[in-house]
Amino acid sequence: MRRVLLAAALLAGLAGTAHAVEGMWQPAQLPKIADTLKQHGLKLDPVTLTDLTAYPMGAIVSLGGCTASFVSPEGLIVTNHHCGYGALQYNSTPQKNLIVDGFLAKTRADELPGSPDMRVFVTEEIRDVTKDVNARLNDQMSGAERYKAIELAIKQLVKGCESEGYRCDVYTFHGGYSYQLIKQLEIKDVRLVYAPPESIGKFGGDVDNWMWPRHTGDFSYLRAYVSKDGKSATYAKDNVPYHPRHVLKVNPQGVEQGDYVMVVGYPGRTNRYRLADEVQNSIDWVYPTQIKVYEDTLNIINTAGKADPKVAVKYASLVAGLNNYLKNFGGQLEGLHRADAVDVKRAQEAQLEAWLKQQGGAGNEALVADIGKLREAIAADRATRERNLDIGLLNRSSMFSNAVRLVRLSKERVKPDLERAAGYQQRDEVRIEGALKQMDRRYDAKVDQQLMTYALQRYVTLPKDQRLPALDQWLGGATTGAAIGAKVSVLYAGSLFGQTDERLKWFKADAKAIDASNDGLLMLARAVQPQLQKLEDEMDAREGEMSKLRPRYMQAMIAWKDSQHLPVYPDANSSLRVTFGNVQGVAPRDGVSYAPFTTVQGILEKDTGIEPFNSPKQELAAIKAKAFDGYASPKQGTLPVDFLADLDITGGNSGSPAMDANGQLVGLAFDGNWESVSGDWLFNPQLNRSIQVDVRYMLWVMHHLDHADNLLQEMGVPTK
Amino acid sequence: MRRVLLAAALLAGLAGTAHAVEGMWQPAQLPKIADTLKQHGLKLDPVTLTDLTAYPMGAIVSLGGCTASFVSPEGLIVTNHHCGYGALQYNSTPQKNLIVDGFLAKTRADELPGSPDMRVFVTEEIRDVTKDVNARLNDQMSGAERYKAIELAIKQLVKGCESEGYRCDVYTFHGGYSYQLIKQLEIKDVRLVYAPPESIGKFGGDVDNWMWPRHTGDFSYLRAYVSKDGKSATYAKDNVPYHPRHVLKVNPQGVEQGDYVMVVGYPGRTNRYRLADEVQNSIDWVYPTQIKVYEDTLNIINTAGKADPKVAVKYASLVAGLNNYLKNFGGQLEGLHRADAVDVKRAQEAQLEAWLKQQGGAGNEALVADIGKLREAIAADRATRERNLDIGLLNRSSMFSNAVRLVRLSKERVKPDLERAAGYQQRDEVRIEGALKQMDRRYDAKVDQQLMTYALQRYVTLPKDQRLPALDQWLGGATTGAAIGAKVSVLYAGSLFGQTDERLKWFKADAKAIDASNDGLLMLARAVQPQLQKLEDEMDAREGEMSKLRPRYMQAMIAWKDSQHLPVYPDANSSLRVTFGNVQGVAPRDGVSYAPFTTVQGILEKDTGIEPFNSPKQELAAIKAKAFDGYASPKQGTLPVDFLADLDITGGNSGSPAMDANGQLVGLAFDGNWESVSGDWLFNPQLNRSIQVDVRYMLWVMHHLDHADNLLQEMGVPTK
Repeated sequence: MRRVLLAAALLAGLAGTAHAVEGMWQPAQLPKIADTLKQHGLKLDPVTLTDLTAYPMGAIVSLGGCTASFVSPEGLIVTNHHCGYGALQYNSTPQKNLIVDGFLAKTRADELPGSPDMRVFVTEEIRDVTKDVNARLNDQMSGAERYKAIELAIKQLVKGCESEGYRCDVYTFHGGYSYQLIKQLEIKDVRLVYAPPESIGKFGGDVDNWMWPRHTGDFSYLRAYVSKDGKSATYAKDNVPYHPRHVLKVNPQGVEQGDYVMVVGYPGRTNRYRLADEVQNSIDWVYPTQIKVYEDTLNIINTAGKADPKVAVKYASLVAGLNNYLKNFGGQLEGLHRADAVDVKRAQEAQLEAWLKQQGGAGNEALVADIGKLREAIAADRATRERNLDIGLLNRSSMFSNAVRLVRLSKERVKPDLERAAGYQQRDEVRIEGALKQMDRRYDAKVDQQLMTYALQRYVTLPKDQRLPALDQWLGGATTGAAIGAKVSVLYAGSLFGQTDERLKWFKADAKAIDASNDGLLMLARAVQPQLQKLEDEMDAREGEMSKLRPRYMQAMIAWKDSQHLPVYPDANSSLRVTFGNVQGVAPRDGVSYAPFTTVQGILEKDTGIEPFNSPKQELAAIKAKAFDGYASPKQGTLPVDFLADLDITGGNSGSPAMDANGQLVGLAFDGNWESVSGDWLFNPQLNRSIQVDVRYMLWVMHHLDHADNLLQEMGVPTK
Repeated sequence: MRRVLLAAALLAGLAGTAHAVEGMWQPAQLPKIADTLKQHGLKLDPVTLTDLTAYPMGAIVSLGGCTASFVSPEGLIVTNHHCGYGALQYNSTPQKNLIVDGFLAKTRADELPGSPDMRVFVTEEIRDVTKDVNARLNDQMSGAERYKAIELAIKQLVKGCESEGYRCDVYTFHGGYSYQLIKQLEIKDVRLVYAPPESIGKFGGDVDNWMWPRHTGDFSYLRAYVSKDGKSATYAKDNVPYHPRHVLKVNPQGVEQGDYVMVVGYPGRTNRYRLADEVQNSIDWVYPTQIKVYEDTLNIINTAGKADPKVAVKYASLVAGLNNYLKNFGGQLEGLHRADAVDVKRAQEAQLEAWLKQQGGAGNEALVADIGKLREAIAADRATRERNLDIGLLNRSSMFSNAVRLVRLSKERVKPDLERAAGYQQRDEVRIEGALKQMDRRYDAKVDQQLMTYALQRYVTLPKDQRLPALDQWLGGATTGAAIGAKVSVLYAGSLFGQTDERLKWFKADAKAIDASNDGLLMLARAVQPQLQKLEDEMDAREGEMSKLRPRYMQAMIAWKDSQHLPVYPDANSSLRVTFGNVQGVAPRDGVSYAPFTTVQGILEKDTGIEPFNSPKQELAAIKAKAFDGYASPKQGTLPVDFLADLDITGGNSGSPAMDANGQLVGLAFDGNWESVSGDWLFNPQLNRSIQVDVRYMLWVMHHLDHADNLLQEMGVPTK
């Protein structure tokens, strides 16, 4: 790391607090780092945090992609505004836009059903199943055999675990070093209780996304409902609130600079143990190429969108996503460069291997050899990276990808369900049918053709031996954009696949009927699908191979760290984790210091009256009048809005409770700062910060602006 | 002001320093605020600062648009890199680019002549001539008469003052409340001595312009030469260095946070005493309209430039200027909004008028009445603001504006020189001829036509009574872009004015010849010019009227402030001023603190290898090696680059010496922060900061990177 801390930085929030402890810890690991936890200020016994059925862990749930907490015995849940967004969208009409207006159910009867896919998952059991999986494996297996054996083992473990109202999943840690079977109660009736208006809940919008200073009130409330007999059930009017085992206590005083704080949640994915070669590949190829491809794609869509506003509407969500990724990729590259990530990784690998060699012995020699093999496998993957990208891009053509999917489905359907590929099992058919039904909403024939043409233009530059013979045959030697475009145009003209009823007809058809079809697109899909399948099998085989090698690397890493008495946390994999640290600001660059707290003063400064900086008039007036109703921080002399901490979070942690030293709720994590974007690869304790909305701002907005005193009472928070 | 200081801000550099004293003070005013100066830390007797021939004022000179200081008895001058830029440009070739490489004359003989228009002005005398001017005026005069009387008085005062080698100017203070005749030695042989490479001197370029944190080494060295007998003379090999009366001492230890600092220089123009109505007009109309017009103009030029790179080169300087203004206008609007400038001004005016009424008496009543008249005059101006803008835009057509100028010149030439209009006197003819000669370099016929068409498209939307009959007649009712474009096209086709020799022929021609010309453009110019002249006369008359009313407003203001024992500094008008304050950071917005110093660490962070963030490799290596040769700040533990102070500066202050409590050189002012852009209207002591390059960085770059030890020795700085 090149950075040195500046005097100003120390003054602005870093002084007096110990260094951050990087890590998304499994609850069971916490007793091993009990001293560090206490040193940072934890007052609870770390052992209590290992019990998922005790306080506070028993109060924390997954929303599938987000995290949330129970805050009342009547099943009231608090999470981020952007995690409850789907419920707001689902209940909004042009006449009554809950996103814009916000929503408050004054009584239980006023609560609105969330969208049908909303779920609350309450983790009830975690069981290590590493032995169960490994018992199916042996060293003689090919990569493909290994992949299939693992897949089957997991399917069987899941099947043996699941029961009515429960969902089970096997989580892979350290790329296959260990496996855990996790059993969760799946609550299916989730209702919207309260959300502030978007001008608070999404204040700053995409402009402020990943940015600090932040002034977003990113919180909302849901409620979990079950059937009268206490079981998981889909929405029914007669359902009753779920009674959680535990409920987070709210600390209305919040935390101050330097205080201990921890976040518990379900982080999605990190790449902390990738090798230097993989980081290098991301810097040299993955991000720059994705940036180019995304920009090209945006160009195609935006040009069409300018000519026809209806097209713009259809692709608005894709465009927003691509722009979001583009911003993210820029942050990744910037952060990886700044951190000298490749050099840091390479040095670490060299140290690890030196240590292994120094230890000596056949076991360690074998580890060194396997790390070498891992590096070779990674290098081999690079040879087909462009092909994999191009094939992926072909799927941006909704017509082509849906046709191929139907061909595949017709082949999987004839197998016993357990043997059907993931994504093509019985339980997946509803989702596939839904996608076919809704294709029109996000599809424009001309744009779809252009996207297919674009993918094919990249595809035809691949080396001959990486191409798909059936696709080449259909292309008939076309290489220019014009020639390929003409082919694609003919293809689309010769297909009825653009019609919903036609697609649904083929969804219901069997393999024989599909084989007999003379729809041009289906014919092409039929010809190409077996070759795509072959590619997928090859990739699965490689993954099987990797599932042998990555654990070896992690085994070496864990042994090495163990020799230094350092525990190793696994990469994020959507399983429950704990991260802890302290409230502190950051000095992101020379001469600049960010305070750990933003205040309502900043809302006045940022407000322009124009979305996303259009604070409610009432809020602006209240801030000017300093009408903080006792929620302000006496220490800060004003009302804090958001705060920074040196916590190690990533996507999936959204909505996670931030808890104080006693495990009481003091805020909700909802984002990281710009420098933390590349933290998925390499955590930098001096620069990476999580962003939380402060509980005092939440309570003030609820009480003073939105009059949600019913909820404050339910949560046991005295109204002032 | 809405802002409150934050705890973090206090810690980051604001604690312990007294509040800034707004003001660009005339040296003679300083004894009146001696206590404040001492309170802020000045150790010199303020009276010494009133003597322009004593230390340190005798060492400070104007470059005409920039400020500079003598730093050796041999006429060595230090100023900003961007102030010496013309000399670098003038001496650069594609083969030997001094801008990119930098330049160091190791001996006096190696010094390069600056561009012929470079000047050093040494102020020798300031005399109040208010009585002399006012003696020519009486209350019965019309605005036009008043304007002419003032113009003539000034011309005569200047003529009576100027002598060989000296330049005199009358400066108007407070819009005509007082006048000063200033006599300056005009040194015409100015040579380039030393400049670091652009990658230091302009590090950050336009991206960092007006921005903090800043890491620019914006300094360079020139030398003033005079004839052997010590008189002002144009460049001659035998000229000898000028021996200044005084030379600034360099303090190689620099200043630290909280230290007293002052800047002496020639600020160009501020609008601190404009009325609320004028601020409102700027917010509502001037800036938004200019932004629109500049964007439209850029669109025209950039579209043409994309099609033809040669066009892009011709207009590069205009494009850079327009972009620069666009950024500035954005900053003005942002700052004026944030400061609630209109409300602040209006409240101040109300207070002033309340005080006048409270004082009572015929004199004060007359003042109130005149302030009312001033407001009416300002309102009347607004009625023709669009017309004035459109006529101004017509001049973006080089063809049209040069033709009109020649018609005007032919009419002025027949008058006695003192009666010829400013800009059309004998001494102006060289400049006019030069512009005619060089028109081609910045002119493309098609773009020129489009710019004229654009201006006319705006013009034809004016109310009938604001239009020019001759122009309307020529337009023949054309109102659409296409119709006007066709007219313009015919006009250009029917003129030889695009040819340099043709323009120069008409430059030499007399009024009779021009009257007889049948060049289409000259015929139009001939028809329109009298009407343009009438508009100009009307505007002069209004200015004459304003020169009666504004001083009345200032008279009231000065009396009011005097009643509070507060002196009033005049708006900047390119005359010598002093501003003082302390080294301090700033909290530009909620949660953000800027340290008062940037350090070389930030150069490592910003360096991308790509201009304008392409630091010399040698510099990066030296910073990494911490090879600071004793120039680092012991207090900061590293080498500072630039620093902030709460000084009140504006354009024209560039290159001004920043001096410590003893009047020793500790840096050079070169910019203000973003929040200070709108400071020209309203100075905000909490947000406005001047940016100085630190003397320690200057000395280190000179010694360690560029080996300019000859200059360090000449300046009496011990090399380490």
